[in-house]
Amino acid sequence: MSHISIIGTGNMARTIGTRAVAGGNTVEIMGRDRAKAADLAEALGGGTTTGDWGTAPAGDIVVVALLYDGVVPAVTQYGDALAGKVVVDISNPFNATFDGLAHREETSIAQEIAKAAPADAQVVKAFNTVFRHVLEKGRPDIFLAGDDPRAKASVGAFVESLGLRPLDVGGLKMAHWLEGAGVITVGLANHGVGNLDFALSVRELPF
Amino acid sequence: MSHISIIGTGNMARTIGTRAVAGGNTVEIMGRDRAKAADLAEALGGGTTTGDWGTAPAGDIVVVALLYDGVVPAVTQYGDALAGKVVVDISNPFNATFDGLAHREETSIAQEIAKAAPADAQVVKAFNTVFRHVLEKGRPDIFLAGDDPRAKASVGAFVESLGLRPLDVGGLKMAHWLEGAGVITVGLANHGVGNLDFALSVRELPF
Repeated sequence: MSHISIIGTGNMARTIGTRAVAGGNTVEIMGRDRAKAADLAEALGGGTTTGDWGTAPAGDIVVVALLYDGVVPAVTQYGDALAGKVVVDISNPFNATFDGLAHREETSIAQEIAKAAPADAQVVKAFNTVFRHVLEKGRPDIFLAGDDPRAKASVGAFVESLGLRPLDVGGLKMAHWLEGAGVITVGLANHGVGNLDFALSVRELPF
Repeated sequence: MSHISIIGTGNMARTIGTRAVAGGNTVEIMGRDRAKAADLAEALGGGTTTGDWGTAPAGDIVVVALLYDGVVPAVTQYGDALAGKVVVDISNPFNATFDGLAHREETSIAQEIAKAAPADAQVVKAFNTVFRHVLEKGRPDIFLAGDDPRAKASVGAFVESLGLRPLDVGGLKMAHWLEGAGVITVGLANHGVGNLDFALSVRELPF
């Protein structure tokens, strides 16, 4: 069982929160709008609590479930409140044409978070290759990138508590390529593959 | 049935050639070393022919199966001999640490080929996310990127003749992210996933 805080009250916060509660984890919801956070906490049930935006999260794992351009500002605003936490970045910084990333250089939101977060916070990229409703309905593979093995292991255990398979792709630098895998996923959807009901996965032989 | 020319005499040339012959396609092998090309053609059987390096390929689809740093020089050397051809780039330009690409900017070998090839040649990225022995033993998904719908359709038909599923990810610019998917594949292998006997795939709900 993991202690999870989710920053955000949108669709991905709801979906991950729902699976987290079902998986027996404790969940806290933190939203800029405290009433929205309380509503989501109540909807999730299972003893889900509400935390104040910008204060120290109750969870050991903090899932930042915001639109990509709000992620680094939020982490910056939380600042030392994230000391010692495992921060999970699920964002997809698509460009306007959905065939590239919003940042031109070879970086990622996850790497930018790592620069903004306290030195003893650990960032893990996860969940970004999965459409929300596939995460609701199915058991998609969850790709992980991060520099700290213990942080990655704790996110991996959380992913397993959701009934999903964590797949380690390497260090945090690989978050750039996971963001690219998000671009591929949208590219497939835009070119006639799978009617959005699919996920990038790892298949092992024989197949 | 497709008419295929393969530039190269290495492992990927052999594997794609073997599947191409089995799929009922006509195959031509072109190698700098003509004797090696003739040996591979003989090994492939099924009427496989040998062509002279740098001359007009017999096939409509030309698979460049060289190490990545030899691809653009070879296409440049072929020059107008590739006029009207569909050129398939299967390369993986890994950096020295296998966690990024050899080119720093947001480009791809496929896009660089398009600059070097005749204006009426069409470039399609394909096959680069698949380990060779998985292509030998299994039926991995084949991701395609390219700007010309007809060229992509003809490569798609060739992929289907191999018993594999072509998946369109979008325009040639997406080749950059497919090269990134190659980096993810190696990252997974280097972090304990799948013992090399796996491939990135698309799974469709329910799962």
